[in-house]
Parts: sequence; C-alpha cells; structure tokens
Amino acid sequence: MADFERMAADWLSYEEALSCVLAAAAPMPAESVAPDDALGRSVAAPMAARATLPAWRNSAMDGYAVRSEELTGPSAGSMPLRLPVAGRAYPGSEPLRNVPSGAAVRIMTGAPLPHGFDSVIRVEHTDGERGGDRSRRLDATRTFGNRSTPAGEAELGDAFVVVHDASDLGRHVRPAGEDMTAGDETVPVGTVVHSGSLPVLLASGCDAVPVFRRPRVGVLSSGDELAGLDRFDAVAAGRAVPDTNRGMIAAAVREVGGVPVDLGVAADDPAGLEEKLADTVRLDLLVATGGASMGERDLLKRVMLEHGLRLDFWRARIRPGSPVAFGQLPAGTQEELPVFSLPGNPASAFVTFHVLVAPYLRAMLGSPTPAGLATTARTDSELPSPPSMTQFYRVRLSPDTARCSLTGPQGSGLVRSLRDADGLARVPEGVGRVPQGDPVSVVLLPGAR
Amino acid sequence: MADFERMAADWLSYEEALSCVLAAAAPMPAESVAPDDALGRSVAAPMAARATLPAWRNSAMDGYAVRSEELTGPSAGSMPLRLPVAGRAYPGSEPLRNVPSGAAVRIMTGAPLPHGFDSVIRVEHTDGERGGDRSRRLDATRTFGNRSTPAGEAELGDAFVVVHDASDLGRHVRPAGEDMTAGDETVPVGTVVHSGSLPVLLASGCDAVPVFRRPRVGVLSSGDELAGLDRFDAVAAGRAVPDTNRGMIAAAVREVGGVPVDLGVAADDPAGLEEKLADTVRLDLLVATGGASMGERDLLKRVMLEHGLRLDFWRARIRPGSPVAFGQLPAGTQEELPVFSLPGNPASAFVTFHVLVAPYLRAMLGSPTPAGLATTARTDSELPSPPSMTQFYRVRLSPDTARCSLTGPQGSGLVRSLRDADGLARVPEGVGRVPQGDPVSVVLLPGAR
Repeated sequence: MADFERMAADWLSYEEALSCVLAAAAPMPAESVAPDDALGRSVAAPMAARATLPAWRNSAMDGYAVRSEELTGPSAGSMPLRLPVAGRAYPGSEPLRNVPSGAAVRIMTGAPLPHGFDSVIRVEHTDGERGGDRSRRLDATRTFGNRSTPAGEAELGDAFVVVHDASDLGRHVRPAGEDMTAGDETVPVGTVVHSGSLPVLLASGCDAVPVFRRPRVGVLSSGDELAGLDRFDAVAAGRAVPDTNRGMIAAAVREVGGVPVDLGVAADDPAGLEEKLADTVRLDLLVATGGASMGERDLLKRVMLEHGLRLDFWRARIRPGSPVAFGQLPAGTQEELPVFSLPGNPASAFVTFHVLVAPYLRAMLGSPTPAGLATTARTDSELPSPPSMTQFYRVRLSPDTARCSLTGPQGSGLVRSLRDADGLARVPEGVGRVPQGDPVSVVLLPGAR
Repeated sequence: MADFERMAADWLSYEEALSCVLAAAAPMPAESVAPDDALGRSVAAPMAARATLPAWRNSAMDGYAVRSEELTGPSAGSMPLRLPVAGRAYPGSEPLRNVPSGAAVRIMTGAPLPHGFDSVIRVEHTDGERGGDRSRRLDATRTFGNRSTPAGEAELGDAFVVVHDASDLGRHVRPAGEDMTAGDETVPVGTVVHSGSLPVLLASGCDAVPVFRRPRVGVLSSGDELAGLDRFDAVAAGRAVPDTNRGMIAAAVREVGGVPVDLGVAADDPAGLEEKLADTVRLDLLVATGGASMGERDLLKRVMLEHGLRLDFWRARIRPGSPVAFGQLPAGTQEELPVFSLPGNPASAFVTFHVLVAPYLRAMLGSPTPAGLATTARTDSELPSPPSMTQFYRVRLSPDTARCSLTGPQGSGLVRSLRDADGLARVPEGVGRVPQGDPVSVVLLPGAR
C-alpha cells in the first residue's frame, strides 16, 4: 500500500497546485455541432469566411447615390441641383448597371453603390426629407418594398430629387470586404461561442461548428452519514447529514460547461468504493468529495491508490480546502482518468472546485483563459488570513464590482455562506490581513448572476 | 395611422430608457421544478429549513471528546493523563448516551458530542497521533467504518488514550443549528440558484423549487435581403445579406435565461409582417430586428402601430442603436405583449439587446440585479464619444478585468467587432472622450467566458 502522506508533491502553494492542474489538462477531442448547440463552447478548428462581406461597396446612409464628378464639373451648375432618379438600390442586391449620365439613384443603408458611383448624399440634404407629405413618403417606401424594379437594371422615369447641400460628396461609402473576405480566418481556435461570436460564424457560412466535446464528469460523494432528499426524514431526525456536495458539484460542473454524471454516494467501506470506481468507464474526469472525517477521506484515497492512483498532489496551502488531491487513475482499457478528491466540508468542496477543478475543466473545453475572470474590489470588512496559506473568502460583489462583502460566517461546514457568493476574495500567501476598505482580488463565480 | 415620429417618448437618454423598460417589467408566474432544473433561475417564494443543521452540538476536529471538569478537577491528576475510550462518535448519528464517568470518546469531525461533553482534544494532542503504527491506525479506521458499535450506546472496552496536552479543553465544539434551524427562511425570493445556493436548498430539504417561469421570447428578423445558412450561396454571390441577427438574439436570450422562439424572417411587406404578428400567442416577449434601411424599420413599427402597438419610446440617445423602440402590442385574447424593435445593424442589435432587453428579461426572471454586473477597467485606447449620447464600445477585458481593449473597428455594420466582446465599455452622456489609460465602466456580457 502506498503511503501518500509521505509523497513529495505535498502541501503545494495555490499557484503551484493550479499550475500542476493546468499542465495536466488536455483539450477534449473535437466534434461538429449545429451553431445553436455550440453556445458556451470553444471553437476547436479555425473557421474561414465562405463569402466576402459586405459583397459590394455599399451605402452607410439612406439617401441618393451620385457620381461626384457630375456634381462638381463645369456642367454641374450650383446648388440646389435637380437630378433625375434612375432606380433604387436595396441591400442584398447586385450593383445597378448602366445608370444614365447625370442621374442619381435612391439608395438604402447597406445597399450596393451602382457601378461608377462614389458618393451618397444623405436624404436630409435633399428635398426628399425637407417638409413634404410624410405619409406619402412612407407609402413610397412601401412600394419600394415590392421591388417592382428588376434587380440590377437602372430605369429612368419621371422622378427627380433636389440636392441642396453637396457636402456629402465622396462620403458614406463603405468598402467591400470591410467585415470579412472569402477565405479569411474569421474565428480562431479557442473562441468561445456566445451571442457575439455566433453571428460571425453565421456570417462566415458555418453551418457545423467544430467545438471541443463536453467532458463527462463523474460526481461521487462518500460517507455512510450522507442522505439525499429521498431520506430527508433521517436528516430532520438528526440521524443523517444532507448530501449537499453531489448536487453542488454537479451544478458547478454544468456552470463551467461539463456534463455531470451522478455516481451516487459511496459507503465508507472499501467494497462500496471499489464498486463506484469500477463504474468510471467513459468518464473524462472524476470529482469525489470525502466524508467529513479524516479517516473517511483517507479511505477514498487509499482505495484509489490500491487501484494504481498516481497522485500529483494531495494537499495544498488553500483555506478552506487544504486536503485537496489531484491524480491520475488507471481506468479499464482507456487512458488514465484524472481524479480530484475534494474535502467533504461544503465550503471546502465549493472553493476547491471553483479555484482548481473549474480551471481544469475550462482547459479541457479549450478555453483560452482557463483560470477564469477576476476583478478587484474593496472589502467591506477586514480579511484576516494565515500568511502561510492562500485564503478564499466567499463574497458578494456590489453591482459595479467596486466593493465586496462577506456572505456571512465563513465556517467551512456552513452551506449558508455559499448562498449569496458571486465571488471568491483571494488573500494570497504572505499577506496576514487585508484591512477594511483595501482592494482584494475576487475570482468571479460563473452562474451567480 | 399613428405617426410615431411625433410621439412624446422620443430620444430618451439611456438611463431614461432603462428606467422605462424596468418599470414595465413584471416577474413571470412561478412554477415548481426539481432542484437540478432550477439552475440559473431565481427563487419565486421563500424557502424554509425542514431540519436543524447541524442537528447536534458537534466536533470541529478529529480527536477525543471529554468532559473538561473531569480533566481539571482535583481527581484529574496532571498530564499526561490516561483515559479509557468508551465508544466512537460518527457524523450523522445521535449523541452517545451513558458514557461512564472519566472516559473519553473517539470522535470524528462533524460527529455529535456525547451528552454532557464539552470539549474535543484534537488527535495530535494524544498518543493516537504520535508515532505508532500508521497502517494499524488506518486499519482501525476501516473497522470504524463498519460501525460495530450500536448507534447511541457507549461501550467501555480495554481501549485507552493518553492525553499529553489539555489546551483544547472547552474547545472545538460547534453549536447545533449553526447553519440553519428548522423553520428558518433559508433562501429568500430572488436568490439565483447556482452552485452556491443549490446546496442550501438541498440542506433545507427542498425537493421542489419554486422559480419564475422562463419567458418565451419570439425572435423575428425583417428584410427581403436576408438569407439564412440554407441560402448561403446567395450570400456568397452577393445577392443576399446573411441573417445573423436572429441567431445572435436567440443566443443572447438563452444566455440571460429565456427560451427563444424562432419566428423566422418577415418579408418587407405588410402582409408578411402581419402573418408573423398573428403568430405571437403564448409569447411573453417579442424581439424584432429591422432590416438595414430606415424604410424597412419604419414598416415594422408602422404595421405594429396598425395592430394597436403602444410605444413607450421609439428612439434613445444610445450609440450604436439609437433607433431602438419598446412598446406593448395587444395580442389575441391575452394581455399585451411587450415588444422590442431593435435596429438591423448587427452591432446595434447586439448592444441594444444587452443594455435594454437583457435587463428586461432579468427582471422577468425575478433577478434582484436586473441591470447585471459591471466593472471598471482602464481603456487601452482613447474612446471618443458624442457628449449628447451614451456610447457603448465592444471591448475585451484582461483576465483580471483591470484593462479593456477595443475588439477592432467598431462600425455598426460589422459583425467582427462582436466576436471577442466580453464587455461593453460605457461612455456616459456629457463625456466627449475617455483618454487612453483612464477608467471606464464596463458592462459584463453573460456567456462570454
């Protein structure tokens, strides 16, 4: 039997433990999914544009497209200038051809400029906008919507526009390809698909998005004393302790983007644990939380060591949560299964998940920033801390994230301290206290708002 | 026909528009769901504890429970002191009764103190931890796990412990009810269910969580020029514009917690729009994005006005996105349907969704902080802004949120500017520019990391 208490990788600093965890993390294999199903996941292969967007030089305004030399040349005359209107240009059509010399074209924002045109005179600089019958103008818009003009062909009728201000000459034209050019890489590997990047994928013509597969994360509690909601009567009678960790860890796995697999509660005997460990095929990660006592935690790790667990570390200078372990477990015919063993106290399990397991999961998911997002806030109360440890306080941030407050008593056995937490204020090693009003780094918790 | 361009509630400041939107928002009806399904939603009725936790005074350490007066009285003798061990106490059991006078009890962290006991001497202050045969101690733990001792009964055998340090007398005892007392309100209305509050619900014995129902949000694009991925050949040929807004808005709805309902693309004619508006029964909110041109936007609002749309505002001093409208549409036999009409430019639709629609949705979902979370970051480049408008720049935050950088050119027609955005830097009215290096408020975008 291995004696893990004498192992070298012991009592790491938080930074060392995080580095160790991230060094061991490899991105999941890729799979192709519909754009909708890619939300919240990272792109696993670079995506290229299938079209040039915008396809044509186009108008940045509603107005009238003109050729500037026709309004400034010797034959142009002075303002106001009356121009025949030779057709209409809409977004999503091809540029008008063969517009008669000296004519303007009614143009909508985003519509292609006719061939040879270089300017858009905004509608406010013409008589189209000045005074006039507003409802008639709206009706005209309605007629525009029917597209009676054949696409691509100019048509000189009896319509005219009077231009009274030529200051827009040479202006309001956006170049073709301003957004992307066919063949360009538009979405690099690691991009998180969200409401901002999804439209880039859609505009690139990407109908199947390669993303990193979501890891399946086994969630295991251990302890004879634990009862789920199905046995809450025993909890109410003081004969059992509620199993809050399994639900908490499963929720946290989902918040980060993994798929939790409920492995239930392992009884405090080697047979019960061995049964659970045999059930780990097709998992990508195992997160176990120990019972409340030292002996039970020993048992979980000891049984895993008997199964060949290679521990990367088994304690870290983190409070709460120092008895946190990470290692690799040989599992069936597959490669090694990474395993986190978290302390059984709810606050310890919560903190160690969010500061170590969540970064590991984000790295599996291909996130370019696996450590997550932090902010700096001023603490509403003094934060004492042993200088030899990194201490994480459960805090509530003000909506502007300028201040943070403790969520209540911070005992590691208390679940109430977790309820309002949207951040973990981090007091690093070497700091004995953060005085009230001083800034402190706060790790933002996903899913909290 | 109503002439919305002359309506009073026009050209609101961003703050006025946000207040108007939030004043109109009502929380959704409640529904009861399993704790797992409550993730990301707000609790709609206060939850009370069904048990007192911990149920008993319990040990904060692994060690030996003693009665301090027996170790300090005249008959106690001096250290080291040899005490018989009369049983073992585990978490999740009832307190031991009838422990013989003068005896200690082996106790695990979280286990109840025997009746009449007031101290736990940590194992390190006894011979149980000093030297000895480590593997034998672990085997003993294994035997503990079998619980051969009948619950609740002390048993005096031939086991002894030698206490060599009495400094723990009176210590390491946690009171009953430290976490919660049966009947206490443990989770108030509005609490967001996440990995921190879920364990409180589980510990409270809550097996059905009352949450606000997720709003069903109709998502509608309008414009003849728009093509989805099924017609991307037309986009690649320059004969259509990709419909990126529908997917973007649906994704953003999901990020905030709503359920998007795809209403497709409405053609640029009143009949096409009317057909879509007839399809709004059972929606809780409608979000429409206009085509790219002024005429088409007019059409959407005009048709809605013909259906009795009551506009709360139809423009706001926001850049990008000033032609944003909000109102109430009579819809079938149900109450009025709230409607947002967002500009068709992708960046304008993105910004107006996240700064106006998302707060409205969060309020529907019962969030206590509907405006969302912001932070303050120093800008890596100067941010010019018209003093008469609130300008929102798409930015990328550094992982410590101390700095923010523009995501690229900020043209409102460019989708590329959205790809890397995890925040919107807000330059308020009255500010003409934020110089490089100065702090700026940044609205955090959900789902971006």
